[in-house]
Amino acid sequence: MSKLPSEFELIARYFAPLARGFPGAYGLLDDAAVITPGPGSELVVKTDAIVAGVDFSPTARAELVARKALRVNLSDLAAKGARPRAYLLDLVLPERIDEAWIADFAAGLARDQGAYGVHLIGGDMSSTSGPITVAVTALGEVPAGRIIRRGGAQPQDMIFVTGTIGDAALGLSAVRGALPALDAESAAFLKDRYELPQPRVDLGPKLLDLATAAIDVSDGLIADLGHVCAVSRLSARLRASAVPLSTAARNAAAGDPRRLAAALTGGDDYEILFTAPSGAADQVSRLSEACGVPITAIGCMAAPSDGIRGQVLVLDDREAPLSLLTQGWTHFGRGD
Amino acid sequence: MSKLPSEFELIARYFAPLARGFPGAYGLLDDAAVITPGPGSELVVKTDAIVAGVDFSPTARAELVARKALRVNLSDLAAKGARPRAYLLDLVLPERIDEAWIADFAAGLARDQGAYGVHLIGGDMSSTSGPITVAVTALGEVPAGRIIRRGGAQPQDMIFVTGTIGDAALGLSAVRGALPALDAESAAFLKDRYELPQPRVDLGPKLLDLATAAIDVSDGLIADLGHVCAVSRLSARLRASAVPLSTAARNAAAGDPRRLAAALTGGDDYEILFTAPSGAADQVSRLSEACGVPITAIGCMAAPSDGIRGQVLVLDDREAPLSLLTQGWTHFGRGD
Repeated sequence: MSKLPSEFELIARYFAPLARGFPGAYGLLDDAAVITPGPGSELVVKTDAIVAGVDFSPTARAELVARKALRVNLSDLAAKGARPRAYLLDLVLPERIDEAWIADFAAGLARDQGAYGVHLIGGDMSSTSGPITVAVTALGEVPAGRIIRRGGAQPQDMIFVTGTIGDAALGLSAVRGALPALDAESAAFLKDRYELPQPRVDLGPKLLDLATAAIDVSDGLIADLGHVCAVSRLSARLRASAVPLSTAARNAAAGDPRRLAAALTGGDDYEILFTAPSGAADQVSRLSEACGVPITAIGCMAAPSDGIRGQVLVLDDREAPLSLLTQGWTHFGRGD
Repeated sequence: MSKLPSEFELIARYFAPLARGFPGAYGLLDDAAVITPGPGSELVVKTDAIVAGVDFSPTARAELVARKALRVNLSDLAAKGARPRAYLLDLVLPERIDEAWIADFAAGLARDQGAYGVHLIGGDMSSTSGPITVAVTALGEVPAGRIIRRGGAQPQDMIFVTGTIGDAALGLSAVRGALPALDAESAAFLKDRYELPQPRVDLGPKLLDLATAAIDVSDGLIADLGHVCAVSRLSARLRASAVPLSTAARNAAAGDPRRLAAALTGGDDYEILFTAPSGAADQVSRLSEACGVPITAIGCMAAPSDGIRGQVLVLDDREAPLSLLTQGWTHFGRGD
């Protein structure tokens, strides 16, 4: 293995170019960066780390790792109605990493920076005896006081979700070889959805006038809807058959109801789940058309059920409750 | 080992209390936090990760790990003249961690939050097959346009440093048992300096009217002074005997010049190195007295030496150049 250049060389070669065009980043040549929200706006900040062997495959291409690390954070900003502006990066790498990996990683960031209009404004490289770990802190902005919270849902609000649900969870199954009967095209689609989320960055800020509450679907549709319920102090009624599935997901789930459950509870979709008054349904349709992003009504909010907040009732087409294997996925222990 | 509660439980129990008093953190119950600089100010952001086995001992107490992770970032803000306000946390933990560790970690953060006037406003918990890894992103504020950069030093500016230098590097030697002849009191002092930096949070903002350039001493005095030289496009003349050493460091270095070199090149001091016009020396003295922090003149800036930027000349008392073993410490490869 070739000897790596110093940390300062690596930053100058691969990361400083990613700061170009953002004056407050000082070319990554200072201890800290400066950022100011535009007039009448405030900053929205979010951090999330991804770890090899947990959030991505240890053999995943560096470019995809970089883009996933960035995108999972941009997804949170989008769900809050914020426009992304910049990010900071903690890159924790095994000493055996080679320079080509770092070059590929930086190329992934460069590609997504162009697509999403953000700049790298600071960061840190560390070595570890463990797996590759990438923490990103993303900064965006919203008009002051307008951030879309989890807690604003009202009883009778409709529940909407963008795109399709469950692809990433099924994609992970495909990566692990657990879907051997699935056709190659479907498997490739689902794997791509797992490896490279599509944060709804353009759509998010357009929800500011529409959504009463929003969250990005990262823990799993039901778990994340549960979070909205808990903070809004309401319950939710979700119609299982209304949840939008891709053709590939339908192919993967065919004949195995456990896979449908996996789709509803699996994480990593990075779609936006939001609530809006039922009178806003037409506006939602127009937004969906304007953005070219499917938006589907999947249920409605209701008063707390039996006094229990945070409860998500999953219903079949006859309004009978379905039971699911798990409510989602957490890093430590299990949600209940 | 006891089974851990879910991630959500852990956040509610140990981390949400750390967000109390900062409305934009939404009790850590949302996807992101909101922060706005005060009128006429802008935000200063910095991120740094620490890794067990690299930046701290795998057997270090959780409370100390938490405080070190926070303090190394506050130190950078201080060196920029920024007042700290808030931070985000990525906590990446082995699955075998127990709840007592997390409780102790949060207690450390609580203690330092009180001391430094900051709040936790967001974060993320992940599991890893590797060592404990803690990334903190700190946010502070400075009057708009006033941040103290690395690049503002002028020829003939004096070079100052706060506190004492080299304690942390010698403390690491003590932790590793490499200083068996050192008296117990000195060893304890040096270990504490390694384990728990004292960021110059109060002093930093008071340098806004005084310093032409500043940096915190984390890579090592000579390496960090080299960064100031490189960005300021100047060289520096550093008088070795002027570098302030603690009594414990003098005891540790007694009779071994390599240990003096280690003090000048070792990292992790988290003091502030700054430059100021020679006419400001009296003002620096008054600031030192007012803050109760020693500030020592250790050399002066000069024109680029032989056309080479970033060069630090270390001189003995007869102005003859000294050679040192290494210019500092980097995570990947070695600086040259």
